[in-house]
Amino acid sequence: MKGNFVYANPTKLYFGDEAQKNLADALKNFGKKVLLIYGGGSIKRNGVYDDVIASLRTAGKEVVELPGVMSNPTVDKLNEGRVVARENNVDFILAVGGGSVIDYAKAVSVAAWYDGDAWERFWVKQEDPQPGERIIPVGAVLTMAGTGSEMNGGSVITNHAANMKIGKVFGEEVFPKFAVLNPVYTFSLPHYQMVAGIFDCMSHIMEQYFSGDDDSTSDYLAEGLMRSVIASSLVAVKDPENYEARSNIMWSSTWALNTLIGEGKTQDWMVHMIGHAIGAYTNATHGMTLSSVSVAYYRHVMKYGLSRFARFARVVWDIPAEGKSEEQLASEGIDALADWIKKIGAASEISSLGVTPEMIDGIADATIIFDAGYKKLTPDEIKEILRHSL
Amino acid sequence: MKGNFVYANPTKLYFGDEAQKNLADALKNFGKKVLLIYGGGSIKRNGVYDDVIASLRTAGKEVVELPGVMSNPTVDKLNEGRVVARENNVDFILAVGGGSVIDYAKAVSVAAWYDGDAWERFWVKQEDPQPGERIIPVGAVLTMAGTGSEMNGGSVITNHAANMKIGKVFGEEVFPKFAVLNPVYTFSLPHYQMVAGIFDCMSHIMEQYFSGDDDSTSDYLAEGLMRSVIASSLVAVKDPENYEARSNIMWSSTWALNTLIGEGKTQDWMVHMIGHAIGAYTNATHGMTLSSVSVAYYRHVMKYGLSRFARFARVVWDIPAEGKSEEQLASEGIDALADWIKKIGAASEISSLGVTPEMIDGIADATIIFDAGYKKLTPDEIKEILRHSL
Repeated sequence: MKGNFVYANPTKLYFGDEAQKNLADALKNFGKKVLLIYGGGSIKRNGVYDDVIASLRTAGKEVVELPGVMSNPTVDKLNEGRVVARENNVDFILAVGGGSVIDYAKAVSVAAWYDGDAWERFWVKQEDPQPGERIIPVGAVLTMAGTGSEMNGGSVITNHAANMKIGKVFGEEVFPKFAVLNPVYTFSLPHYQMVAGIFDCMSHIMEQYFSGDDDSTSDYLAEGLMRSVIASSLVAVKDPENYEARSNIMWSSTWALNTLIGEGKTQDWMVHMIGHAIGAYTNATHGMTLSSVSVAYYRHVMKYGLSRFARFARVVWDIPAEGKSEEQLASEGIDALADWIKKIGAASEISSLGVTPEMIDGIADATIIFDAGYKKLTPDEIKEILRHSL
Repeated sequence: MKGNFVYANPTKLYFGDEAQKNLADALKNFGKKVLLIYGGGSIKRNGVYDDVIASLRTAGKEVVELPGVMSNPTVDKLNEGRVVARENNVDFILAVGGGSVIDYAKAVSVAAWYDGDAWERFWVKQEDPQPGERIIPVGAVLTMAGTGSEMNGGSVITNHAANMKIGKVFGEEVFPKFAVLNPVYTFSLPHYQMVAGIFDCMSHIMEQYFSGDDDSTSDYLAEGLMRSVIASSLVAVKDPENYEARSNIMWSSTWALNTLIGEGKTQDWMVHMIGHAIGAYTNATHGMTLSSVSVAYYRHVMKYGLSRFARFARVVWDIPAEGKSEEQLASEGIDALADWIKKIGAASEISSLGVTPEMIDGIADATIIFDAGYKKLTPDEIKEILRHSL
């Protein structure tokens, strides 16, 4: 475990097929006026909305609704939410949905009472709220597993005018106070969204895993999570109502990105940076932008982190090491990842997401480049990876 | 993930070789009068005491000292601490030491302002504190890795007069508010204590792992932790000042017993129950009571949970499965565990801890029997396991 760090995660998780029964009680700790944020209205068709409204009534809350949060929530939508939260002087925000809805709720939470340009300050300049600044507390009812937004401070906002999609990671004061995790709530999700969430979760783990060559407990935990996600995903794609598989995926997604497996180590995050740039250009589903560039990206950086990729093959994919060079083993691990992407039906090609060869230069230029993985990429290398992903 | 559960862990962890620099700040959130609890005084020789006193001064605290907490803290010592806490009307308890000191601090925390017989109520009858009852908040500075007490509600107290050693698991209101985890603080620990802590940690993981035959993310996380503990322990026994190994062991120990890897599954805990009975009779070091009965216990229950033991061999110990029966593979996993116990120098025989054949009936009768592992033991089976462990 490298360096000095603080682990603090105050989010309380209510998990299980009756998790929503805790919602009314959980809400009692917060003020009367609740801003209810959700997406396109699928929660009205699958019964989740009714469950939530019943709990809000039981808890004696006054409800202001803010529907219509899109996937890849935008700055314009953020500004709309900011006004609604402020004009209604809400005490609490309840986000009901997947990562986009919860990310958006956190954005409204910090932006509502900030008078300046919140996009500029929190996302572009990556500043943090200061002590004393008013943050509206957030709670979450999760309906899609994958992003981990239910137990962290992450909030990705898209600015289409600027072709920018930026993730901000807020501190524990912005983490949801609680999250209701009922795996059954994810059953009605379209297959494509379920698969995108599964890959998003896997990608979060890989982004933290493929960095550093030290021996760290965090990487062993990451391996355990990856093994579980792989096993459960293969069940879930055939039998989406398999509770065991869906509950494992939901739990793994939360723990894949709640800071635990990234503690005491460096992290990569270049797949997400490329994926965000693709998302800014195409509005494609986040998880699919990741799956479609991962294989080319990992093949490209493999030689710079050979022993970690060999370990990935051996421990995560159970590939026998005997008689193989480290390079061969490492390469077979990435083959296994590519096979798995096909098996679960995640996107393998960015062309299927609407990326054209003409967009590649722009996407590469829009990609924020970090230097914590096995190889600091140049824009030319990103273009090469994108061309291999077409 | 089976059943419905709540995950809430409010303990804030300061980790790293400079973790103690956060102590003064962490203390600022609590009242002026601090009860400083520690053990036999080793912290005065290794500099930890000086670090802590300096931080208490910086934070402007008034300090009342309560030294002399023994391993396996007793009811008599608890009653002493209760009086000291109460007479001095302390606002906060700072525990500096290993699991015994932190367990003891939690016991004083709940017992101080309870007027009746705390041992009878909280440990024998396993009751919880009620809302509104006064609990003194606890913080911890860890000097020995193993028990996990720094991030959970566990508190094991021994009553020698009754030959009873009972663990109580309190709720989140009794968890330490924060814990300072500096791996360097564990460097001066005697080798025997380090090894006992390592086995204690491994045993916590195995107690949660060897139960249930479902596919659960928790078991995959457990496998990751076990792999990390095994790898780092083999380094640490040869090179106790290897920071990487000791930091992994410290972090793994915390996560082995902070509720995470036990969520959504049944758990066993029979090795601990037998170990506690041995401890009540002999006052042997906790971790060594566990190591000396584990192999006989697991050989005894193996056939009732064969597929889990085979998985343990394959995933945790990397034993090739090819061409082997499940039984053979499972058995080789327990062989590997036995080898590892010898390699790290943990106790393999209860006779080395002072257990005589004459004690066996008494220890078996004093063992609390649970029914959540692969086989509910009878007292006769416990006697057999103890005889095999002599």
